[in-house]
Amino acid sequence: MATHKLLLLPGDGIGPEVMAEVKKVVGWLDSHGFASFSIEEDLVGGAAYDENGVPISDDAMAKAFDADAILLGAVGGPKWNTVGFDVRPEAGLLRLRKDLQLFANLRPAVCYPALAEASSLKRDLVEGLDVLIVRELTGGVYFGEPKTITDLLDGQKRAVDTQVYESYEIERIARVAFELARTRSNRVVSTEKHNVMKTGVLWKQVVSEVHGSEFSDVQLEHQLADSCGMQLVRNPKQFDVIVTDNLFGDILSDVAAMLTGSLGMLPSASLGSVEEISGRRRALYEPVHGAAPDIAGKGLANPIAMIGSLGMAMRYSFGLGEAADKLDAAIAGVLAQGYRTADIYSDGMTRVGTTGMGDAILAEL
Amino acid sequence: MATHKLLLLPGDGIGPEVMAEVKKVVGWLDSHGFASFSIEEDLVGGAAYDENGVPISDDAMAKAFDADAILLGAVGGPKWNTVGFDVRPEAGLLRLRKDLQLFANLRPAVCYPALAEASSLKRDLVEGLDVLIVRELTGGVYFGEPKTITDLLDGQKRAVDTQVYESYEIERIARVAFELARTRSNRVVSTEKHNVMKTGVLWKQVVSEVHGSEFSDVQLEHQLADSCGMQLVRNPKQFDVIVTDNLFGDILSDVAAMLTGSLGMLPSASLGSVEEISGRRRALYEPVHGAAPDIAGKGLANPIAMIGSLGMAMRYSFGLGEAADKLDAAIAGVLAQGYRTADIYSDGMTRVGTTGMGDAILAEL
Ligand SMILES: CC(C)[C@H](C(=O)O)[C@@H](O)C(=O)O
Ligand SMILES: CC(C)[C@H](C(=O)O)[C@@H](O)C(=O)O
Repeated sequence: MATHKLLLLPGDGIGPEVMAEVKKVVGWLDSHGFASFSIEEDLVGGAAYDENGVPISDDAMAKAFDADAILLGAVGGPKWNTVGFDVRPEAGLLRLRKDLQLFANLRPAVCYPALAEASSLKRDLVEGLDVLIVRELTGGVYFGEPKTITDLLDGQKRAVDTQVYESYEIERIARVAFELARTRSNRVVSTEKHNVMKTGVLWKQVVSEVHGSEFSDVQLEHQLADSCGMQLVRNPKQFDVIVTDNLFGDILSDVAAMLTGSLGMLPSASLGSVEEISGRRRALYEPVHGAAPDIAGKGLANPIAMIGSLGMAMRYSFGLGEAADKLDAAIAGVLAQGYRTADIYSDGMTRVGTTGMGDAILAEL
Repeated sequence: MATHKLLLLPGDGIGPEVMAEVKKVVGWLDSHGFASFSIEEDLVGGAAYDENGVPISDDAMAKAFDADAILLGAVGGPKWNTVGFDVRPEAGLLRLRKDLQLFANLRPAVCYPALAEASSLKRDLVEGLDVLIVRELTGGVYFGEPKTITDLLDGQKRAVDTQVYESYEIERIARVAFELARTRSNRVVSTEKHNVMKTGVLWKQVVSEVHGSEFSDVQLEHQLADSCGMQLVRNPKQFDVIVTDNLFGDILSDVAAMLTGSLGMLPSASLGSVEEISGRRRALYEPVHGAAPDIAGKGLANPIAMIGSLGMAMRYSFGLGEAADKLDAAIAGVLAQGYRTADIYSDGMTRVGTTGMGDAILAEL
């Protein structure tokens, strides 16, 4: 049995707590013969900055290049509000995404029937919701140059960010979206602001070309980003796959996630290209939720998104669909039994903390 | 009695239909001695392009500079999908905003009790909702240079948009937000992505400075744009005033608008600075909804947002608060009587078309 190299980067806030639960599950999978893992661990974000003065060390980056998959908890927190822009916690995550070329961010927004009531939307609008946001992750305004603040006269300053996209970046993310749509309901909505942005003009054009030449069997619709935000609120179930750029994807995937009523439930995957020689696809998995510094260290965090991220790693990186299914079933099982962390608690359910939820999932496994 | 110069720019799609209802109301106000108006009318958007080859003519711009207030219907539609970027319908609206320096876009998201059921959110989360989004409208990625698409080798292209903000642009929009907050619940949330964007870093810093030196009595909170999108969906009533940049404002104000369940109800104002000599504040008023080409010409459009835009003009441009109150009361009145256009129709109500709704409001007046 192949040994999978897993790098764990717990990060900041509730990251370490939820990662601790993942370790238990990894141990279980290992000891029950589903897979064999070799585990490395390192720092990222504010935790890395505190230790090394940078939000990810070269050493940790070397481990990341060596890993078959990376699991990341979360980064950031008010503690690091005043550190320099280049060493802020988020820069560690951004370096991982950029250096490993993890250009395809998959953000499923799935509404668990047991939790539909937790949504702020009316139940019938979200029950059974299953949208996949495919967000471009290594381009756009996150990385374009110039990205500067310069001093002008009279104490005035000018800040500049640059949104850049080249055709190939749009082509490859479009392909990921269309391919994934074929495994789902075969519908893609592509989202940009072509009425205002040149990157939107190119985005729309390239997505249309890739569609016409390679994926004309998939249904494609173009929506402006503001309309897409509205439509997500109005009637989210109209969507199957949404493909969009880095910045719009950041906002729209969070809006979509919140529709499900249970942010603590949602994992995400960030994938690179398949490498020619190794046949390996670099990949990082992380919960959609952030570091939640307000509840960190209290044992309150919901570990399901983090454990679900391990499930996505099984499926997308290790070809262990069976183990992933088992994990998903265990999560659904504990929810059906009424176990709830504080974020998804409702009357009559059994309230558990982070470790309680992890243990319940292990017991169900 | 002063005569107010009003420029009407009906634009595209349902624009002309809803503007026709406004004309009736203007006539009523005039003939009932509330105000005296001199009316000009011109083309904007695709309608202007079809006529003149540009989405707003220099002639129309001259009228705009001469007007005390501008009422705009809507621009855009698939008919002009293939026209050049510089002459697309939206460019007419953007030229108006930029040349008149209408930097402060006020987008109220108000949920009428009679319509709370139309929201996709649960009633208790939106009933009584009253959020004001203050969006910067003449800077950011909408206007920054370079804004280009260039050809690379092998048929590849590179598209660039540039987000630029200078301190003074952030200062003046922050002041508008804080001043408006003082007339409301005295709370401002400022939204950016300082963890990723330099413009976000400057934004947060300048808003904090303006707050500290001039508005420390107002409660200020900073939220990342993705979090703000989530919070709008989770619990919109937590917000009073949200101040944000042009692009985030575009998306977040549409998300907020959709929460109310009645996009056809929401007006907006775009204001400039008060001019030194004339004491006049340039202003453009338009519905939040778009041109809705799918229902254009069918007499189905809801004219309330357009009529409400006239109400905002009364209040913000002409100091006619009493007339504005009367108009708001008439709108609330017809809703209470059960009149509904298709977009807000529900069982047991009286369905009316565009002119029917306009007539009902006139009758109520
Ligand atoms: C932490 C932050 C840099 C990041 C982003 O903006 O991409 C986060 O919001 C996300 O969506 O993964
Ligand atoms: C029509 C379009 C250019 C415009 C914008 O993006 O600003 C619209 O969406 C709006 O919000 O007023």
